[in-house]
Amino acid sequence: MTTAAILGVGTSLFGKQPDLHPSELVWRAVDEALRSAEIAPADLDAVYLGTVFGAPGVAQRALHALGVVGVPIITVENACASGTTALHEAAEAVRLGRWEHVLAVGVEKMTDQFAGAIHPESTDIEGRTGLALPSLYAMAATRYQHEYGLTDAELAMVAEKNHAHARFNERAQHRTPHTVEEILASRMIADPLTLLQCCPIADGAAAAVVGRTTPGRRSVTIRSSVLRSGRLWDHRSQHVWGFDVIRDTAAEAYELAGVAPSDIDVFECHDAFTIGEIVTTEAIGLAPVGEGARLLHDGHTRVGGPQPVNPSGGLLSRGHPLGATGLAQVAELTWQLLGRAGDRQVDGARLAVVETMGGGVAGIDGNACAVAVLEGPSA
Amino acid sequence: MTTAAILGVGTSLFGKQPDLHPSELVWRAVDEALRSAEIAPADLDAVYLGTVFGAPGVAQRALHALGVVGVPIITVENACASGTTALHEAAEAVRLGRWEHVLAVGVEKMTDQFAGAIHPESTDIEGRTGLALPSLYAMAATRYQHEYGLTDAELAMVAEKNHAHARFNERAQHRTPHTVEEILASRMIADPLTLLQCCPIADGAAAAVVGRTTPGRRSVTIRSSVLRSGRLWDHRSQHVWGFDVIRDTAAEAYELAGVAPSDIDVFECHDAFTIGEIVTTEAIGLAPVGEGARLLHDGHTRVGGPQPVNPSGGLLSRGHPLGATGLAQVAELTWQLLGRAGDRQVDGARLAVVETMGGGVAGIDGNACAVAVLEGPSA
Repeated sequence: MTTAAILGVGTSLFGKQPDLHPSELVWRAVDEALRSAEIAPADLDAVYLGTVFGAPGVAQRALHALGVVGVPIITVENACASGTTALHEAAEAVRLGRWEHVLAVGVEKMTDQFAGAIHPESTDIEGRTGLALPSLYAMAATRYQHEYGLTDAELAMVAEKNHAHARFNERAQHRTPHTVEEILASRMIADPLTLLQCCPIADGAAAAVVGRTTPGRRSVTIRSSVLRSGRLWDHRSQHVWGFDVIRDTAAEAYELAGVAPSDIDVFECHDAFTIGEIVTTEAIGLAPVGEGARLLHDGHTRVGGPQPVNPSGGLLSRGHPLGATGLAQVAELTWQLLGRAGDRQVDGARLAVVETMGGGVAGIDGNACAVAVLEGPSA
Repeated sequence: MTTAAILGVGTSLFGKQPDLHPSELVWRAVDEALRSAEIAPADLDAVYLGTVFGAPGVAQRALHALGVVGVPIITVENACASGTTALHEAAEAVRLGRWEHVLAVGVEKMTDQFAGAIHPESTDIEGRTGLALPSLYAMAATRYQHEYGLTDAELAMVAEKNHAHARFNERAQHRTPHTVEEILASRMIADPLTLLQCCPIADGAAAAVVGRTTPGRRSVTIRSSVLRSGRLWDHRSQHVWGFDVIRDTAAEAYELAGVAPSDIDVFECHDAFTIGEIVTTEAIGLAPVGEGARLLHDGHTRVGGPQPVNPSGGLLSRGHPLGATGLAQVAELTWQLLGRAGDRQVDGARLAVVETMGGGVAGIDGNACAVAVLEGPSA
């Protein structure tokens, strides 16, 4: 069995970029990824492209112009975990010896599709009754507050931390730091979640070239990669939230990699809304259930603390172009593990975990959860 | 290396079924596939679902209710080849030993999305200028007629044959036979293609359970499965059509299976428009370039002839629910190879080829082409 590695990564800028064609976003990400991997387009054996709302053919349209012709190109969708699903399929293909070099790329041009909130499909009964994602996350937050006494200010501390991180990420959508008070005072979206506690609508792309580990070459080893599906939110469920799918996926990824949560130096996780990071940090083993806010009070998950979470600014500040997000997380961790993260570098980072949740709401079982354990070069 | 096989198949009915939820279409196909494979939902290790316009989560929503929970569920898109892309990924996973039982399923609820023709995306420049698929195929037909002297009546003979086949397919959308004269007299859609030469808008689903070949068990062996991408239609191209991607994909599938086109007993191929079948039968080696119409004149590709093409009625008569089509083709060939095709049975069928074209136009390089060589049980 081959060990798969990330040979190069790249991203576009993130934010509202209505004038860019989806192909242009893809080109920026893929060009950077290929250059950093020192791989030519013609060396790619296959491509997985993650997108949620991308038009049919978005992958081929963009890749043909780059000279990626003839090889299998497969568009994958797994809601917000589409990008990490592309990485997972690429990593498995290399691990099983199916291909040598596989491109995983994610893209979303959300300003083409949505002037405001994402509108529900005609067959989506929950969505049509108002149970869009902000309200589902808000319900999860309210329930969590009821169960564990979390305050509104503690919720807002997640956004304060991630906005502070994004100050040093020149590709992030929102780079202005905000105090807890400012975050609480921003417009209410779905009580208790205010505007600055919700990830913004973004356009963007991100990419990773996956190949084999090669002695002497600085790359990021994929120690494990796990993809699971959860259960859709069910109005008959006795729990407004639960974090089973994240916990189970992370546990399997840790076990396959032979590591424990305490071994990990840096995380990127799915903070689509502030409550998401609190529930997720518990599910991936950084705090007992109900005690996630402690990680914010003692600076445990801040850059400079022992286990930074979302040094890129996370979905809350980098922006959340759905299909691109998972690979933007992977790009951030790759830069961290190669010591190329600039002013937001986590010192001595050697082990990293990426977690992406697709659909549902963090805490309520969703369509998919992807978790991978990544390891940087020793030297 | 394991040999992958189709252990069971199933489909919904095809046609306009606006009252059915996409999940209900999936349930009908998957339930039949699981029963015929004698596999329980809990025995599935993973699912690939092909759809083009299905809402995010269409896969999880349908499969959770069937008891398929926790395992990887990945939605794949490759335009009209989405269903065969799902089969290809499932077959490769079994072949490489990644999983034991994989469900490939395809679904499209077109009546939810399209009252009339498929409208182009805002970023699709060709589409917005009127170059939708019917006009692209019409241009391919006109060019072919100019080059090779094909008559309008010969074009219509494809539809006459496939409508005659569909008479015996109780799941097909259009089961009424039509004469060449009736086909030519139907409403003009894009000169020279009349209404009855264009595949209808359909709702439907189809599924296949892929697993290992087991001695003593009657299953359909996947002798080879190849997926390639082509080049998108390019307004600077000197050719209105070319069939390179189909020819190359088929050639590789034949070579991997160690067979020649003349060895194949029955075909399902991508007849989205009548010209498609003519160009495709040439590309897959049934006739020299420019001589595809001969196969219609001498009955070569009619059920009862030596190498029937589209015994199910094809896309033209069975209907074309985009993501479901590839697996509907596979279901038809599986029934043919197991001797279960009823009044449309191809006598003694042992080797079959499925070809699906995604995007572009048959003859113009498209987003994807999938070709698989299937073999029935010897006894």
